[in-house]
Amino acid sequence: MGLIVQKYGGTSVADLARIQNVAKRITKAYDNGNNVVVIVSAMSGVTDGLIDMAKNITESPEKRELDVLLATGEQTTAALLAMTLKAMNYPALSLLGYQAEVLTDCAFGNARILDIGTSRIKDLVEQHNIVVVAGFQGIDQNGNITTLGRGGSDTSAVAIAAALSADICEIYTDVDGIYTADPNICKKARKIGMLSYDEMLNMASLGAKVLQIRSVGFAKKYNVPIHVRSSFTEEEGTMVVNENAGMERLVVSAVTHDKDQARITLKKVPDQPGIAAKIFTPIADAGVVVDMIVQNTRAEGHTDLTFTVPKSNFKTALDIERRVAAEISAEDVLADKNIAKVSVVGVGMRNHSGVASKMFNTLARENINIMMISTSEIRISCIIEEKYTELAVRVLHTAFGLDKEE
Amino acid sequence: MGLIVQKYGGTSVADLARIQNVAKRITKAYDNGNNVVVIVSAMSGVTDGLIDMAKNITESPEKRELDVLLATGEQTTAALLAMTLKAMNYPALSLLGYQAEVLTDCAFGNARILDIGTSRIKDLVEQHNIVVVAGFQGIDQNGNITTLGRGGSDTSAVAIAAALSADICEIYTDVDGIYTADPNICKKARKIGMLSYDEMLNMASLGAKVLQIRSVGFAKKYNVPIHVRSSFTEEEGTMVVNENAGMERLVVSAVTHDKDQARITLKKVPDQPGIAAKIFTPIADAGVVVDMIVQNTRAEGHTDLTFTVPKSNFKTALDIERRVAAEISAEDVLADKNIAKVSVVGVGMRNHSGVASKMFNTLARENINIMMISTSEIRISCIIEEKYTELAVRVLHTAFGLDKEE
Repeated sequence: MGLIVQKYGGTSVADLARIQNVAKRITKAYDNGNNVVVIVSAMSGVTDGLIDMAKNITESPEKRELDVLLATGEQTTAALLAMTLKAMNYPALSLLGYQAEVLTDCAFGNARILDIGTSRIKDLVEQHNIVVVAGFQGIDQNGNITTLGRGGSDTSAVAIAAALSADICEIYTDVDGIYTADPNICKKARKIGMLSYDEMLNMASLGAKVLQIRSVGFAKKYNVPIHVRSSFTEEEGTMVVNENAGMERLVVSAVTHDKDQARITLKKVPDQPGIAAKIFTPIADAGVVVDMIVQNTRAEGHTDLTFTVPKSNFKTALDIERRVAAEISAEDVLADKNIAKVSVVGVGMRNHSGVASKMFNTLARENINIMMISTSEIRISCIIEEKYTELAVRVLHTAFGLDKEE
Repeated sequence: MGLIVQKYGGTSVADLARIQNVAKRITKAYDNGNNVVVIVSAMSGVTDGLIDMAKNITESPEKRELDVLLATGEQTTAALLAMTLKAMNYPALSLLGYQAEVLTDCAFGNARILDIGTSRIKDLVEQHNIVVVAGFQGIDQNGNITTLGRGGSDTSAVAIAAALSADICEIYTDVDGIYTADPNICKKARKIGMLSYDEMLNMASLGAKVLQIRSVGFAKKYNVPIHVRSSFTEEEGTMVVNENAGMERLVVSAVTHDKDQARITLKKVPDQPGIAAKIFTPIADAGVVVDMIVQNTRAEGHTDLTFTVPKSNFKTALDIERRVAAEISAEDVLADKNIAKVSVVGVGMRNHSGVASKMFNTLARENINIMMISTSEIRISCIIEEKYTELAVRVLHTAFGLDKEE
C-alpha cells in the first residue's frame, strides 16, 4: 500500500510482448492496492536508430533538433504501454516530459532536471490512474524539448519519485541487481542485497551499466529508496538506500574495474602557481573529462603530473598536452593506453584501517605493479597494467571475503 | 517578398534525400527574401505503421494514446527537416503542435482547431527563422495531444497561414494540381489553373485525394490563397482562391466521381412528423456519415426514403435500418452496393440554366440510368450503376467542353 514509481528500461519494453509483460507487472502492483507511476525508456535500439538517421544528415546534428527527434522514442513507448493498460481495462494515461512538467536547464542532449511540477501527476494518481511518463525528456524554461543524456530515464524516475515522495523507486532492467564484481570476469561474484547511495556513486563502472549515476545523486539528495531488479524474473534485486548500520558488516562491498582509461604524464613541470590550470583548462575546454590526477613533487622546483582520461579522448588530450608542455617548458610528455583502474568500494572502510595496505599487498603478491593510486572516503582505486585487470579483480574479491560460497 | 506557408505531404518527405530536396525548395523561397513557415506531415508509411502497431495491441486502441503515438510521426519529420536546414547553415527550428499553440477541441483522432496562439511563431519569423511546424497535431485545453484526422496537416497549414495572415499557403504533394476529372479514367482531363473555395468544397472526391476538405473551409473563412502543387517539379499547380470574375468562363469546372457509395431504401414509410429522425438518429449514433438523402412522396400517407452511405459502413447501416423498418412499420428495406456518384461542379452554374438537363441528356444518350439526383448551388450529382462510372465521367467531360486539345 503506497506510491510506487517503476522505471522500465529499453530491453524491458523492446517489443509488444514485453510491453504486455510489463503491463502485467504494473497491474499486479496496482491490484495490491498501490498507486503506480511508471517511467519508460525507448524500445531498445530505437534511440540508436534515430541517432543514426540524424548522423546521415550531418556529422553533428543541431542538438535542439536531435532532442526533438530522440524524444519520440519514449513518447512511442509511453503511448503503447498506456494503450496496453487501457486495453486491459485499467485506468491509465501517458504523459510526456512537458506534460509531467519535468523542467530542465537548456543543455540539449545532457540536460539537468531543475524542478518537477507535480500537480498534474498528483491529481491523476489521486484519481487512481496509472500514470505512464515518457522518461529521458523534459522541457526548458523556453518550452523547448530537452533530453537528459544516456540512461536519463533513471534520473527521470528518481526525480519523479522524489517529487511525489514515493515509497520506492523500482528500476527494472535486464540484469537482476548489482554484483560484488563483474560476473563475466569473476565467477564468484554475488548479488548485493543492499548498498548505500555513496557506495553506488563510487562504483560507477559497475553501477553505470545498470543505473545512470546522476540518478543516484538525486536519490541520495531526496532519500529515495531505489530497488534495481530484473523485469524478467520475480527475484529481489539490489536495494540502494541511505547508509545504515546493517550495511557495515563487510568492509568492502564490491570490486570494480574500468578498462576505459588512458594515462598522460607531464615530466618536470615547473612547480609554480597556476601551472595546473594551464595544463587542465585546455582539455576541459575540449570537453575531455579527467578522472584521476596525481602529482609527485620532485626536487629542484619541478614536479611530475599524471592524469587519466577515457580512451576515446586519449588522442585529443595528448595533442593538447604536447602543445601545453612546450608552452610551459615541461621536459617530456609520456602516454600509455594499456592501463586499467581497479577499485574496492565500501562504507565499512570508514571504520576500518588496513584496507589500503591489504589491497596493495594482494596485488603485490601477484606481481601486479601499481602505477597510480587515488582514494576517497569509501573507495581505493589503483591504476595497473590492463592485462592484469581480471586477475586483480578476482584476487581482491577473494581477499576481501566477497566470494560466494560454493 | 512576403510570408509564405509551405506544407509538405508524406511522399514529399518520404526519406532523407527527399527531405534534402524539400530543404532546397524552402531555402530558395527564403533566399528570395521571403519569410517561410513550413508544415510537415509524417514520412509516408509512418502513420500507417504506427496504427498497425497499435492495432496489434488491441482492435480499438484508446484514442487519446493513439494520438500521442501518431504525433511522433510529424515530430520526427519536423526535427529531421530543421536539422537539415541547420546543417545547410540556415536559421531554422522545429515546433510541435503544443509549442506552436495549435489549440483544438478534445475530439481525439479527429480534433478541430479552435485557435492558434501565434506569438511564438511570429517572434521567430520576425527574427528571420525558418519555422518548421509538425502538422496534424494540436493540444486541447487540458494539455492533451490531439490529432486532426487524415490529411490534417493541410488544415494545420491553412490555419497557421490564416493566423499569420500569410500571403499564400503552398500545399506540396505528389500530384501537380487539381484536374478537371480523374486523369486515370479520363485521358482528356486538364489541370485546372484556378478554382474557387466553393468549387473545391464541392468536389470532395477529386479534391480530397489532394487536400483535406476541412482545410478548404478554413481557407475560405479566412481567405487564404492556396496553391496546390508538386514538390517534384517546378511547374505551377492549381490556385484555390476566393471566387472572382475570371473564373466564370466555364460553366462546369470539373467532373468528379465517387465509387465509395452504397444505397439503402426504406419503402412505404409512414409519412409522419419525426419519422426521419427515427431513421437517421441511430445510424448517426453509430458514427455513419450519410451522404445523399432523397425522399419521394407516395400516395396514401406513405413515402419512400433513400440514402447513401460509404461502402465501409454499408453493413452497419443496413442492420440498423432493418431494425428501424420493423419498428416504424416500413414495408421493406432495399439495398444496393453497386452504385457510384458522378457530379459536375462549377461556380458558372449560378448564372447558367440548362446544366442539369444537359447532364441528364448526356447520360441518357449512353443509356445510363439515373437512380438519385441531388443538387447544390454549384454542383449536380447523380447516382448511377457503378459499372458506368468511367463512361459517365468521360462523356460529361466532353459534353461540358473540358477536354484538352489534342
